[in-house]
Amino acid sequence: MNSYGTLFRISTFGESHGKAIGVVIDGCPAGLEIDQDFIQHELTRRRPGQSKITTQRQEEDKFQILSGVFEGRSTGTPIALVIENQDQRSKDYSHVENVFRPSHADYTYEAKYGIRDHRGGGRSSARETAARVAAGAIAKLLLRKSNVSIHAFVSQVGEIKAPHYTQLDLSKTEENIIRCPDASTAEQMISLIDQVRLDRDTIGGVVTCVIKNTIVGLGEPVFDKLHAELGKAMLGINAVKGFEYGSGFEGVTLRGSEHNDEFYTDGERIRTKTNYSGGVQGGISNGEDIYFNVAFKPVATIMQDQATVDKEGNAATVSGKGRHDPCVVPRAVPIVEAMAALVLADFLLRAKTNRM
Amino acid sequence: MNSYGTLFRISTFGESHGKAIGVVIDGCPAGLEIDQDFIQHELTRRRPGQSKITTQRQEEDKFQILSGVFEGRSTGTPIALVIENQDQRSKDYSHVENVFRPSHADYTYEAKYGIRDHRGGGRSSARETAARVAAGAIAKLLLRKSNVSIHAFVSQVGEIKAPHYTQLDLSKTEENIIRCPDASTAEQMISLIDQVRLDRDTIGGVVTCVIKNTIVGLGEPVFDKLHAELGKAMLGINAVKGFEYGSGFEGVTLRGSEHNDEFYTDGERIRTKTNYSGGVQGGISNGEDIYFNVAFKPVATIMQDQATVDKEGNAATVSGKGRHDPCVVPRAVPIVEAMAALVLADFLLRAKTNRM
Amino acid sequence: MNSYGTLFRISTFGESHGKAIGVVIDGCPAGLEIDQDFIQHELTRRRPGQSKITTQRQEEDKFQILSGVFEGRSTGTPIALVIENQDQRSKDYSHVENVFRPSHADYTYEAKYGIRDHRGGGRSSARETAARVAAGAIAKLLLRKSNVSIHAFVSQVGEIKAPHYTQLDLSKTEENIIRCPDASTAEQMISLIDQVRLDRDTIGGVVTCVIKNTIVGLGEPVFDKLHAELGKAMLGINAVKGFEYGSGFEGVTLRGSEHNDEFYTDGERIRTKTNYSGGVQGGISNGEDIYFNVAFKPVATIMQDQATVDKEGNAATVSGKGRHDPCVVPRAVPIVEAMAALVLADFLLRAKTNRM
Amino acid sequence: MNSYGTLFRISTFGESHGKAIGVVIDGCPAGLEIDQDFIQHELTRRRPGQSKITTQRQEEDKFQILSGVFEGRSTGTPIALVIENQDQRSKDYSHVENVFRPSHADYTYEAKYGIRDHRGGGRSSARETAARVAAGAIAKLLLRKSNVSIHAFVSQVGEIKAPHYTQLDLSKTEENIIRCPDASTAEQMISLIDQVRLDRDTIGGVVTCVIKNTIVGLGEPVFDKLHAELGKAMLGINAVKGFEYGSGFEGVTLRGSEHNDEFYTDGERIRTKTNYSGGVQGGISNGEDIYFNVAFKPVATIMQDQATVDKEGNAATVSGKGRHDPCVVPRAVPIVEAMAALVLADFLLRAKTNRM
Repeated sequence: MNSYGTLFRISTFGESHGKAIGVVIDGCPAGLEIDQDFIQHELTRRRPGQSKITTQRQEEDKFQILSGVFEGRSTGTPIALVIENQDQRSKDYSHVENVFRPSHADYTYEAKYGIRDHRGGGRSSARETAARVAAGAIAKLLLRKSNVSIHAFVSQVGEIKAPHYTQLDLSKTEENIIRCPDASTAEQMISLIDQVRLDRDTIGGVVTCVIKNTIVGLGEPVFDKLHAELGKAMLGINAVKGFEYGSGFEGVTLRGSEHNDEFYTDGERIRTKTNYSGGVQGGISNGEDIYFNVAFKPVATIMQDQATVDKEGNAATVSGKGRHDPCVVPRAVPIVEAMAALVLADFLLRAKTNRM
Repeated sequence: MNSYGTLFRISTFGESHGKAIGVVIDGCPAGLEIDQDFIQHELTRRRPGQSKITTQRQEEDKFQILSGVFEGRSTGTPIALVIENQDQRSKDYSHVENVFRPSHADYTYEAKYGIRDHRGGGRSSARETAARVAAGAIAKLLLRKSNVSIHAFVSQVGEIKAPHYTQLDLSKTEENIIRCPDASTAEQMISLIDQVRLDRDTIGGVVTCVIKNTIVGLGEPVFDKLHAELGKAMLGINAVKGFEYGSGFEGVTLRGSEHNDEFYTDGERIRTKTNYSGGVQGGISNGEDIYFNVAFKPVATIMQDQATVDKEGNAATVSGKGRHDPCVVPRAVPIVEAMAALVLADFLLRAKTNRM
Repeated sequence: MNSYGTLFRISTFGESHGKAIGVVIDGCPAGLEIDQDFIQHELTRRRPGQSKITTQRQEEDKFQILSGVFEGRSTGTPIALVIENQDQRSKDYSHVENVFRPSHADYTYEAKYGIRDHRGGGRSSARETAARVAAGAIAKLLLRKSNVSIHAFVSQVGEIKAPHYTQLDLSKTEENIIRCPDASTAEQMISLIDQVRLDRDTIGGVVTCVIKNTIVGLGEPVFDKLHAELGKAMLGINAVKGFEYGSGFEGVTLRGSEHNDEFYTDGERIRTKTNYSGGVQGGISNGEDIYFNVAFKPVATIMQDQATVDKEGNAATVSGKGRHDPCVVPRAVPIVEAMAALVLADFLLRAKTNRM
Repeated sequence: MNSYGTLFRISTFGESHGKAIGVVIDGCPAGLEIDQDFIQHELTRRRPGQSKITTQRQEEDKFQILSGVFEGRSTGTPIALVIENQDQRSKDYSHVENVFRPSHADYTYEAKYGIRDHRGGGRSSARETAARVAAGAIAKLLLRKSNVSIHAFVSQVGEIKAPHYTQLDLSKTEENIIRCPDASTAEQMISLIDQVRLDRDTIGGVVTCVIKNTIVGLGEPVFDKLHAELGKAMLGINAVKGFEYGSGFEGVTLRGSEHNDEFYTDGERIRTKTNYSGGVQGGISNGEDIYFNVAFKPVATIMQDQATVDKEGNAATVSGKGRHDPCVVPRAVPIVEAMAALVLADFLLRAKTNRM
């Protein structure tokens, strides 16, 4: 449904063109300082209209906290956070009221529920992810107390790939509008997106996420393995088609003798020499960097006419109009981080009862 | 934890070398005929010792149903199913009681719980998946009533890849021991595994799964999207490193105008011409084939000495002995199918309340 | 936590003197007509200031739906509903910032969370129940489609008791301010509350609830029995001290031969001659009236000085001021109905998957 | 369904006359010493045939642990525990295969599921509570580490009542077969049950439970209040008709000025002078004794012929035979304690994440 998490649990609500979207966070421990500027900062990283390679739709995404915070700190009661919808050009969508846009959720929502709010994709709009980013910001504040930090960046657009994360300075991610820490790769990516946009088309990409200073022992086998929940959380983001961690799909070509991560002691604690495991063994974090890739398909809304059918199944055409992203990955970076933070915060709390 | 599913819910238990493993299925609708031969058939597909390319460990995996079935049919009460452990050469594991095997869960379990049953990997052993296969068999019986069928097969071992599933006859999967429906690819795969085994090493692979005659409307956005739950379920299987559906990671290089699946009507119902969506749009099934890939790493247990550390962090060596699979994918095929069946059965029940 | 229900699931939020309270309803089937006037009607039955025997605090409890409703009908997506807080005389509570009011939640919240919003009881305020009433109104709309109706009334205030419900005309409940369908009992109850108020004191009471035209088969043994969930739901309402259904506590003095409800057929369906079972057998509804009693303690806030301690444990006095109910039961009637509706709606949906 | 608890979570299975009953406990912290003698001791307190006032059915209720315990301690993985069914005189039940016993669950199970195991009540049999007692024993072992102790006893049989618990020596509960710590009351209760049994009838009673040395801060408002979960857990036990805690139903006649529990400091910590709150305020434990009453109806199986209907709705007679309890309360004492222990253990774990 619309809730995620076991102990640190969020429930999101809201449609693209309804009155508001929002989230209720239940289970945030009491006493956490809620830095509202930081929440706004995260929302601003996700908001539309932030650069020439994102949609030109303008939404400020100002939020309001309705409950759960007293004198600047969480009280242990539900934190409700609301973002009003603005700049809703609902009429922009009258042309899709009765037709199904290809590779959107129009048809499946109609088939499942028998009714749908067609304006801007309704509930299936990526606008809903703003609520996740706000909740994720609070999860990040919680994780900070344990020194855990999360770093996502764009590692691929179309065929253009950045080097492996271990060769990058992840502090440079925010230095360009594509959010790739490698400047020259970033430039190529931006050029490609520019071209795609001029072609009235869209393109896919990959976001890589790295979690550092991870606590050992996070993850709850056998079903709620750390990487399984990360996978679910990422695959639940709009437009995601794949998830891999550590050696991922490429690892299948290796032999066990190459792939195994040898243990050693660095004087202080047990480490591994390589990290094909991606920081997770048996579904539980081992203290090494957790890293994973998330594949995003090309945005389904293109500025071209497309053949489709209407509600009655008759042939129809959907025209390309509105304001949309030519490539979703730069704005997906804070969303990936937010979902990762929510997963980690939940496991951090769950791990508190593992032992006597 | 150790439960999976919302309405069709399983809870597995058991360690590799404990008395028994098993599963409790709660929420199976009453009145389903429980075909015990079919359950055994599925378990036999997974069991060790079934061919020269799997472990030579012998376990029959005979099960017993303790509850929930009366006069051959489910009663709506919990179905408990137990498989006793046999052929436990627990002494085979005394050499790993105090050392951590590389890329196994030994270290993380010890770090998380402060105690672990080291024999055969204990709870982290893939032996636990037998319980999933048994439960999945019952889920398959439920899905059969709705004509949904699930077909997994080995699509890659090391660098050797089978053609795309649409070019294969999936009814031939069981015709060879690697479970690849393309005979000549199968032969190459088997040769490779043979070689790897002789090298006292292991290798990874990919299992592809195709779900046919899917019902339109399965999946519960925004968090419990159909593909997100499939992803979680697959990533929860031992040794899995990645999941992608539809166009997956390769889809990121396409443009939207190529990738979008055009709608048409085939006379009877709404269809898509292409299926880059992998049968899922907006997290909800659209009636086309659902297909996805699952990446399995090379098995961590190799027949070679490896450097590691012991519980105190001192350098140690773990020797390669015991009986293990050189490549996990042939035995993973029924496990992937079982988890897919559990996901689908659960969504089938959940979808019953979507509308007035 | 702050969520209730399995398939028809609500999550409430908000403190007495925060910006707003509200509720998110997840799992309401699509296509239900959302009658906003009815929701308001239910909220008005609960609101303060409605009669001389309730608190004179004035709150209109106007609500706003933020999501999940399109063109007057539910869409299957989360319904968020917000009620802004007004008439907050937060300063009325400065005297309890550092002292613990006897038999309130001040001390336990402080001990549990280390922080509390002291204004008006914060999250522990009965104000939160407005969110339940709003959600319950939507549950009632759902139940109406199945002809199920819910009738609560005040059956006891102090020592004054109304006759058994089978001797009452439940359509008369709203005819007086105490919500007791027996006019003469109602009069006595009102006099008693008047006297108690003049004494600057409070008094307890009992609300009885009757559910008619119940569907056979609701309830999910062995833990989620129908009456067990009703009990949990009622005990979760502020000030509730007890729950009994059918013969209840008095039934323990009967013999089995008296207490057993003999089956017969009324021509149409199987019925019971007596109904000591209270419409529930083995945790599942049998189609007879479901009826139960809910005990409410005297309101803890009295208009008298009371000895207590402050945060440091030092002796202190809490003075009686503010605007409070001398007896909670008349306003509790719609709350009891709302929680009953939520329980029933959830079981109605859950029952849809009991059988093949 | 058949699971209970959030973090310390049990799933029970099994029918009265199936192969076995059992329970899977998920979430028990690792490192707890599992005292198997104690588990057996608790099962023996519940088992049939223990005295002249219980059923003469003989079952030893020997259990076997299948998983989750290694070298005497819990490992953090699921603990599966199975009790084989013996002494099953299934033929004793052939007379009820097609008729519905009054005030049993026969009719409602048939109506809900369309199929039922009629032997001994199948899943609706109180035999299932043995699994709860076994799991509860493990919960008690966990609570012991926090010094929490649970004391249930029989406080009423028919009209015969024991004094208030504060006037009793609870260590004497096991000194007589009725489990009432007051010797003279016990004697009267036993005489009454003897008489009832000779009359081939049954009678109800009340079990009171007292929890001592409770930790402050247990319970999760607003829905999972401590007393609300206790209520649900108790109402889920077979034959229970009511639950009240602290002042309960009698408290409604008191005035707030009498009922409020004045705070004071006993030198060490904050206490209340009276305890009408029953140790719970705002749904959270305050450290005082938690106490509550549980009402049990007269057992539905009586040794007399009763009028009823068969599956087709035709008039029929069900004869009184088999071996049954004339009064359920002496055997209910360990069941009440077990369910209380499960509730407390779960809240103990949940409370670990309330604060930063």
